[in-house]
Amino acid sequence: MDRRSFLKTSAIGGSAAAATTLAAPAYAQGARTLTMVTTWPRGLAGVHDAAQRVADSITTMSDGQLTIDLKSAGELVGAFEVFDAVSAGQADMYHGADYYFVGQHPGYAFFTAVPFGMTAQELTNWYYHMGGMELHDELGQIFGLKSFLGGNTGAQAGGWFRQEITGPEDFQGLRFRMPGLGGEALGKMGASVQNLPGGEVYQALSTGAIDGTEWIGPWSDQAAGFQEITKFYYTAGFHEPGAGLSVATNRDVFDSLTPAQQKIIEIASAEAHQWNLAQFLANNGRALQQLQSEGVQALEFPDSVWDAMGAAAQETLAQYMDDELYKQIHDSAMDSMRASSGWITRSEGAYRAQRDRILG
Amino acid sequence: MDRRSFLKTSAIGGSAAAATTLAAPAYAQGARTLTMVTTWPRGLAGVHDAAQRVADSITTMSDGQLTIDLKSAGELVGAFEVFDAVSAGQADMYHGADYYFVGQHPGYAFFTAVPFGMTAQELTNWYYHMGGMELHDELGQIFGLKSFLGGNTGAQAGGWFRQEITGPEDFQGLRFRMPGLGGEALGKMGASVQNLPGGEVYQALSTGAIDGTEWIGPWSDQAAGFQEITKFYYTAGFHEPGAGLSVATNRDVFDSLTPAQQKIIEIASAEAHQWNLAQFLANNGRALQQLQSEGVQALEFPDSVWDAMGAAAQETLAQYMDDELYKQIHDSAMDSMRASSGWITRSEGAYRAQRDRILG
Repeated sequence: MDRRSFLKTSAIGGSAAAATTLAAPAYAQGARTLTMVTTWPRGLAGVHDAAQRVADSITTMSDGQLTIDLKSAGELVGAFEVFDAVSAGQADMYHGADYYFVGQHPGYAFFTAVPFGMTAQELTNWYYHMGGMELHDELGQIFGLKSFLGGNTGAQAGGWFRQEITGPEDFQGLRFRMPGLGGEALGKMGASVQNLPGGEVYQALSTGAIDGTEWIGPWSDQAAGFQEITKFYYTAGFHEPGAGLSVATNRDVFDSLTPAQQKIIEIASAEAHQWNLAQFLANNGRALQQLQSEGVQALEFPDSVWDAMGAAAQETLAQYMDDELYKQIHDSAMDSMRASSGWITRSEGAYRAQRDRILG
Repeated sequence: MDRRSFLKTSAIGGSAAAATTLAAPAYAQGARTLTMVTTWPRGLAGVHDAAQRVADSITTMSDGQLTIDLKSAGELVGAFEVFDAVSAGQADMYHGADYYFVGQHPGYAFFTAVPFGMTAQELTNWYYHMGGMELHDELGQIFGLKSFLGGNTGAQAGGWFRQEITGPEDFQGLRFRMPGLGGEALGKMGASVQNLPGGEVYQALSTGAIDGTEWIGPWSDQAAGFQEITKFYYTAGFHEPGAGLSVATNRDVFDSLTPAQQKIIEIASAEAHQWNLAQFLANNGRALQQLQSEGVQALEFPDSVWDAMGAAAQETLAQYMDDELYKQIHDSAMDSMRASSGWITRSEGAYRAQRDRILG
């Protein structure tokens, strides 16, 4: 039976019906090609690399039984359409940032990043050992998806500003590009938040159509060329302290795979999470040194700005608490963050501070 | 041809001869069982879990083509004999901490941890994106091994002391348990360094035969019961800021596997590195909270002690610079650490400090 017609008659894409238990179709045997759509333009350094890494690992480890056909944003469906496409069975898998899909469910924000939320390591602790993966799966059951983390950008930079920031009042009316819940929080601080597609940001900043932008971090920001426009670069940001990327497979497709193939998708995704985070951090370190040598000032927001960001972030996260599953995810993530953060601060944090003091 | 008799006639275990290129024996087809020996007692939380994770992932992902038969320390060979056993082909793989094998080559220290060296994340950055894996492979070629990282304990605790530490002079004559290059450095500070097997540490500390011990971190330390003996617990240590564990396969065995099977070993090992680090950090966070609720004092060494530790660590690491490959590994690791550390401090580090200040 053809999977697509099967899905068309048996499950309504994107609805709870897709999550009901269906007998696995009898096409589990033999070599198969799975289509993976993504939220990334082909070749976008880092994030597209993570999708490619997952695809290549699955293809190689399955010894030709599963070939992943990677489609960049727009090749089969648009970037923001991947969720519905995989949910409906139009594509088999997606690689993307799940916070793009807070419209489908606000709980998805936690599997990328929320303002004043978890760092990449804290997300990793939560996801694999403190209930995160199970909650991701619970969300996926609603939409007929089987999701795993499959990439991470690390802590994103505070961003580029045409003027130095001296206090929270500087955000009043500031035209700033920031997507997601972070942008929502910035709006509460009085900013005029813009959500421009990546391709338009450079021109908007250079013409003064916007006063500032966040992007990803030094490696990606340098490639985008923002250092040609302004030298005011805030390295730490409140909005995405460790942005996870996800691999989601249509649940009927996933259920039709052999246990070996299912494990291959799970482990390939998890490995890509680590590999991609290290890729960003390795390249960001080098790029920051280069940017500084070109006159970019690595700045930090004053405490008063952080205080305002903290309050705005709390207010933003509280808005969705009426949804029971959102509240469950929020509470689980925040409890986990507090529990694992204490030890990290007292061990590695204290060590790094001493090492930096002594080695310089 | 039987692999063991093949190896006996073709390669001298542990010597450079094992690394010469040999035609792959013709046993690559069909289901195989590979024996994995470890440096861990069966069931030792965390470290043995990492070995089990690697074994299970390989077995499941290969769909029965590779079954990993996991042998704990002493079941086939002793903990510290695993390196030579796999090098000689007596076993197929080992899971262990490579700094146990500094006697074979001092460069192996860097693939676990060195005093004042890389954190787990810095090690990950170096390993996968800044030359670390290639250098691990270069070491492995000398001994007929194909090595991958396959676990990590995170930053290890400074340890338990029967008396509070107020300055570097307190280490004069202090009988302290610490293995590896960290112990060597502590000796330079005047300590009488003991290297007791795990099973003897509790009794030695409780009878006063030693004045203190490091072990792993709160999760493992709590299980060992040191909090019953003393409440002085130094959470940050200088000796193992992010201890990596390794999976090494006999190189002839590895070369005889299919590309799919080789990739399965590589990706399963890498995934276990992330999974295990998160396991330690998740459990350490919880355990530290429990220990503190039982009256344990989470302390930090004064700056004067860190200064002395820093000087002793530098002196220790400098001792082996006459070996060209050691020097190459040392320089690569330290350059990488400096490059990736700058960004981490300015992004995630600054964010965490602000978040902790604001959320408490």
